[in-house]
Amino acid sequence: MPVPQSDLDPAIAARLRRTADGLVAAVVREQSTGDVLMLAWMDDEALHRTLTTGRATYWSRSRQEYWVKGETSGHHQLVRGVAVDCDGDALLVTVEQVGAACHTGAHTCFFTELPVQGVKEDA
Amino acid sequence: MPVPQSDLDPAIAARLRRTADGLVAAVVREQSTGDVLMLAWMDDEALHRTLTTGRATYWSRSRQEYWVKGETSGHHQLVRGVAVDCDGDALLVTVEQVGAACHTGAHTCFFTELPVQGVKEDA
Repeated sequence: MPVPQSDLDPAIAARLRRTADGLVAAVVREQSTGDVLMLAWMDDEALHRTLTTGRATYWSRSRQEYWVKGETSGHHQLVRGVAVDCDGDALLVTVEQVGAACHTGAHTCFFTELPVQGVKEDA
Repeated sequence: MPVPQSDLDPAIAARLRRTADGLVAAVVREQSTGDVLMLAWMDDEALHRTLTTGRATYWSRSRQEYWVKGETSGHHQLVRGVAVDCDGDALLVTVEQVGAACHTGAHTCFFTELPVQGVKEDA
Protein backbone atom coordinates (compact mmCIF):
# COMPACT_ATOMS: atom_id res chain seq x y z
CA MET A 1 0.00 0.00 0.00
CA PRO A 2 1.40 3.41 -0.89
CA VAL A 3 2.71 5.56 1.94
CA PRO A 4 0.78 8.82 1.92
CA GLN A 5 2.62 12.01 1.02
CA SER A 6 3.43 14.00 4.12
CA ASP A 7 6.22 15.80 5.92
CA LEU A 8 6.33 13.15 8.64
CA ASP A 9 9.85 12.11 9.61
CA PRO A 10 10.57 9.06 7.41
CA ALA A 11 11.98 7.19 10.40
CA ILE A 12 8.62 7.54 12.13
CA ALA A 13 6.65 6.82 8.96
CA ALA A 14 8.60 3.58 8.59
CA ARG A 15 7.23 2.39 11.94
CA LEU A 16 3.58 2.70 10.93
CA ARG A 17 1.39 -0.14 9.76
CA ARG A 18 -1.62 1.52 8.19
CA THR A 19 -5.13 0.34 7.34
CA ALA A 20 -6.15 0.11 3.70
CA ASP A 21 -7.25 3.74 4.09
CA GLY A 22 -3.76 4.77 5.22
CA LEU A 23 -4.76 5.31 8.84
CA VAL A 24 -3.61 4.33 12.30
CA ALA A 25 -5.82 4.36 15.37
CA ALA A 26 -5.11 7.06 17.96
CA VAL A 27 -6.10 6.32 21.55
CA VAL A 28 -6.39 9.59 23.46
CA ARG A 29 -5.68 9.65 27.17
CA GLU A 30 -5.94 12.57 29.58
CA GLN A 31 -2.66 13.19 31.36
CA SER A 32 -4.06 14.56 34.60
CA THR A 33 -6.65 11.82 35.22
CA GLY A 34 -5.40 8.91 33.11
CA ASP A 35 -8.91 8.67 31.63
CA VAL A 36 -9.23 7.29 28.11
CA LEU A 37 -11.13 10.07 26.34
CA MET A 38 -11.71 8.95 22.76
CA LEU A 39 -10.48 7.02 19.77
CA ALA A 40 -9.69 8.85 16.56
CA TRP A 41 -7.67 8.24 13.40
CA MET A 42 -4.50 9.73 11.98
CA ASP A 43 -2.79 9.47 8.66
CA ASP A 44 0.88 10.40 8.32
CA GLU A 45 0.16 14.09 7.87
CA ALA A 46 -2.18 14.25 10.87
CA LEU A 47 0.54 12.64 12.98
CA HIS A 48 3.11 15.07 11.59
CA ARG A 49 0.90 18.04 12.49
CA THR A 50 0.20 16.60 15.94
CA LEU A 51 3.91 16.10 16.66
CA THR A 52 4.98 19.50 15.34
CA THR A 53 2.16 21.78 16.55
CA GLY A 54 1.38 20.19 19.90
CA ARG A 55 -2.34 20.29 19.04
CA ALA A 56 -4.02 16.95 18.44
CA THR A 57 -4.97 16.69 14.78
CA TYR A 58 -6.91 13.79 13.30
CA TRP A 59 -8.25 12.57 10.00
CA SER A 60 -12.03 12.61 9.93
CA ARG A 61 -13.24 9.49 8.14
CA SER A 62 -16.78 10.85 7.87
CA ARG A 63 -15.81 14.29 6.57
CA GLN A 64 -12.63 13.14 4.78
CA GLU A 65 -10.63 16.09 6.07
CA TYR A 66 -8.08 17.05 8.71
CA TRP A 67 -9.59 18.01 11.99
CA VAL A 68 -7.79 19.97 14.71
CA LYS A 69 -9.59 18.91 17.86
CA GLY A 70 -11.26 21.99 19.36
CA GLU A 71 -11.07 24.08 16.18
CA THR A 72 -14.81 24.71 16.28
CA SER A 73 -15.70 23.67 19.85
CA GLY A 74 -12.74 25.29 21.60
CA HIS A 75 -12.13 21.93 23.28
CA HIS A 76 -8.50 21.65 22.27
CA GLN A 77 -6.16 18.85 23.17
CA LEU A 78 -2.68 20.00 24.19
CA VAL A 79 -0.35 17.16 23.33
CA ARG A 80 1.95 16.00 26.12
CA GLY A 81 3.21 12.80 24.53
CA VAL A 82 2.72 10.38 21.66
CA ALA A 83 3.76 6.73 21.69
CA VAL A 84 3.49 4.16 18.91
CA ASP A 85 2.69 0.56 19.73
CA CYS A 86 4.82 -2.52 19.12
CA ASP A 87 3.35 -3.30 15.70
CA GLY A 88 2.87 0.26 14.50
CA ASP A 89 -0.89 0.26 13.98
CA ALA A 90 -1.88 2.34 17.00
CA LEU A 91 -0.80 5.52 18.75
CA LEU A 92 -1.32 6.56 22.35
CA VAL A 93 -1.74 10.33 22.52
CA THR A 94 -1.47 11.85 25.98
CA VAL A 95 -3.15 15.25 26.23
CA GLU A 96 -4.43 17.93 28.46
CA GLN A 97 -8.05 18.24 27.43
CA VAL A 98 -9.67 21.68 27.40
CA GLY A 99 -13.38 21.23 28.18
CA ALA A 100 -15.18 18.04 27.18
CA ALA A 101 -13.58 15.50 24.86
CA CYS A 102 -16.87 14.13 23.54
CA HIS A 103 -19.08 15.98 21.09
CA THR A 104 -22.01 15.10 23.37
CA GLY A 105 -20.48 17.25 26.11
CA ALA A 106 -19.40 14.23 28.13
CA HIS A 107 -15.92 14.15 29.63
CA THR A 108 -15.06 10.98 27.71
CA CYS A 109 -16.67 9.29 24.72
CA PHE A 110 -16.72 5.95 26.58
CA PHE A 111 -19.73 6.60 28.81
CA THR A 112 -21.94 3.63 27.90
CA GLU A 113 -21.10 0.58 30.00
CA LEU A 114 -22.03 -2.85 28.65
CA PRO A 115 -23.01 -5.71 30.96
CA VAL A 116 -20.18 -8.16 31.61
CA GLN A 117 -21.10 -11.58 32.96
CA GLY A 118 -18.86 -13.34 35.39
CA VAL A 119 -17.18 -10.25 36.79
CA LYS A 120 -16.09 -11.04 40.30
CA GLU A 121 -15.25 -7.98 42.32
CA ASP A 122 -12.84 -9.90 44.49
CA ALA A 123 -11.44 -12.25 41.83
CA MET B 1 -22.73 -3.73 5.44
CA PRO B 2 -24.05 -7.04 6.80
CA VAL B 3 -24.06 -7.53 10.53
CA PRO B 4 -21.97 -10.60 11.30
CA GLN B 5 -23.70 -13.68 12.67
CA SER B 6 -23.17 -13.95 16.38
CA ASP B 7 -24.96 -14.50 19.65
CA LEU B 8 -24.31 -10.91 20.71
CA ASP B 9 -27.34 -9.22 22.32
CA PRO B 10 -29.08 -7.44 19.40
CA ALA B 11 -29.48 -4.30 21.51
CA ILE B 12 -25.69 -4.13 21.86
CA ALA B 13 -25.08 -5.10 18.24
CA ALA B 14 -27.31 -2.21 17.16
CA ARG B 15 -24.93 0.23 18.87
CA LEU B 16 -21.87 -0.84 16.87
CA ARG B 17 -20.52 0.96 13.85
CA ARG B 18 -18.15 -1.50 12.23
CA THR B 19 -15.32 -1.16 9.74
CA ALA B 20 -15.69 -2.66 6.30
CA ASP B 21 -14.19 -5.81 7.85
CA GLY B 22 -16.93 -5.92 10.49
CA LEU B 23 -14.66 -4.83 13.34
CA VAL B 24 -14.57 -2.30 16.14
CA ALA B 25 -11.40 -1.13 17.85
CA ALA B 26 -10.88 -2.29 21.43
CA VAL B 27 -8.73 -0.12 23.68
CA VAL B 28 -7.48 -2.18 26.60
CA ARG B 29 -6.79 -0.49 29.90
CA GLU B 30 -5.42 -2.01 33.10
CA GLN B 31 -7.77 -1.46 36.02
CA SER B 32 -5.17 -1.34 38.77
CA THR B 33 -2.80 1.14 37.10
CA GLY B 34 -4.98 2.90 34.52
CA ASP B 35 -2.28 2.11 31.94
CA VAL B 36 -3.37 1.71 28.33
CA LEU B 37 -1.99 -1.73 27.46
CA MET B 38 -2.85 -2.40 23.83
CA LEU B 39 -5.25 -1.91 20.96
CA ALA B 40 -6.98 -4.92 19.45
CA TRP B 41 -10.04 -5.63 17.33
CA MET B 42 -13.37 -7.31 17.99
CA ASP B 43 -16.18 -8.44 15.78
CA ASP B 44 -19.63 -9.08 17.25
CA GLU B 45 -18.79 -12.63 18.27
CA ALA B 46 -15.53 -11.62 19.96
CA LEU B 47 -17.44 -8.99 21.93
CA HIS B 48 -20.09 -11.55 22.83
CA ARG B 49 -17.44 -13.97 24.09
CA THR B 50 -15.68 -11.20 26.00
CA LEU B 51 -18.91 -10.11 27.70
CA THR B 52 -20.08 -13.62 28.56
CA THR B 53 -16.83 -15.33 29.55
CA GLY B 54 -15.04 -12.47 31.28
CA ARG B 55 -11.88 -13.31 29.28
CA ALA B 56 -10.84 -10.75 26.68
CA THR B 57 -11.31 -12.27 23.24
CA TYR B 58 -10.29 -10.54 20.03
CA TRP B 59 -10.35 -11.06 16.29
CA SER B 60 -6.86 -11.47 14.89
CA ARG B 61 -6.67 -9.62 11.59
CA SER B 62 -3.36 -11.27 10.71
CA ARG B 63 -4.43 -14.83 11.56
CA GLN B 64 -8.13 -14.33 10.73
CA GLU B 65 -9.25 -16.18 13.82
CA TYR B 66 -10.56 -15.60 17.32
CA TRP B 67 -7.91 -15.10 19.90
CA VAL B 68 -8.42 -15.47 23.64
CA LYS B 69 -5.70 -13.27 25.08
CA GLY B 70 -3.33 -15.47 27.07
CA GLU B 71 -4.48 -18.73 25.51
CA THR B 72 -0.93 -19.59 24.52
CA SER B 73 1.10 -17.14 26.65
CA GLY B 74 -0.87 -17.53 29.87
CA HIS B 75 -1.11 -13.74 29.94
CA HIS B 76 -4.89 -13.61 30.31
CA GLN B 77 -6.97 -10.50 30.64
CA LEU B 78 -9.73 -10.76 33.22
CA VAL B 79 -12.45 -8.40 32.08
CA ARG B 80 -13.69 -5.92 34.68
CA GLY B 81 -15.71 -3.67 32.39
CA VAL B 82 -16.51 -2.87 28.78
CA ALA B 83 -17.79 0.48 27.53
CA VAL B 84 -18.78 1.48 24.01
CA ASP B 85 -18.08 4.98 22.78
CA CYS B 86 -20.54 7.63 21.64
CA ASP B 87 -20.49 6.63 17.99
CA GLY B 88 -20.14 2.88 18.43
CA ASP B 89 -16.85 2.31 16.65
CA ALA B 90 -14.66 1.75 19.69
CA LEU B 91 -14.73 -0.19 22.94
CA LEU B 92 -12.87 0.46 26.16
CA VAL B 93 -12.06 -2.83 27.86
CA THR B 94 -10.94 -2.59 31.46
CA VAL B 95 -8.98 -5.64 32.58
CA GLU B 96 -6.76 -7.14 35.16
CA GLN B 97 -3.73 -8.21 33.15
CA VAL B 98 -1.92 -11.41 34.08
CA GLY B 99 1.75 -11.00 33.16
CA ALA B 100 2.77 -8.77 30.28
CA ALA B 101 0.21 -7.43 27.81
CA CYS B 102 2.68 -7.10 24.94
CA HIS B 103 4.00 -10.05 22.96
CA THR B 104 7.48 -8.50 23.37
CA GLY B 105 7.24 -9.03 27.12
CA ALA B 106 6.69 -5.34 27.82
CA HIS B 107 4.00 -4.28 30.26
CA THR B 108 2.22 -2.26 27.57
CA CYS B 109 2.47 -2.26 23.78
CA PHE B 110 2.91 1.54 23.77
CA PHE B 111 6.55 1.71 24.78
CA THR B 112 8.02 3.73 21.90
CA GLU B 113 7.73 7.45 22.55
CA LEU B 114 7.80 9.81 19.58
CA PRO B 115 9.27 13.31 19.82
CA VAL B 116 6.66 16.03 20.27
CA GLN B 117 7.70 19.60 19.51
CA GLY B 118 6.36 22.48 21.51
CA VAL B 119 5.53 20.51 24.63
CA LYS B 120 5.71 22.92 27.54
CA GLU B 121 5.92 21.19 30.88
CA ASP B 122 4.25 24.09 32.66
CA ALA B 123 1.80 25.10 29.92
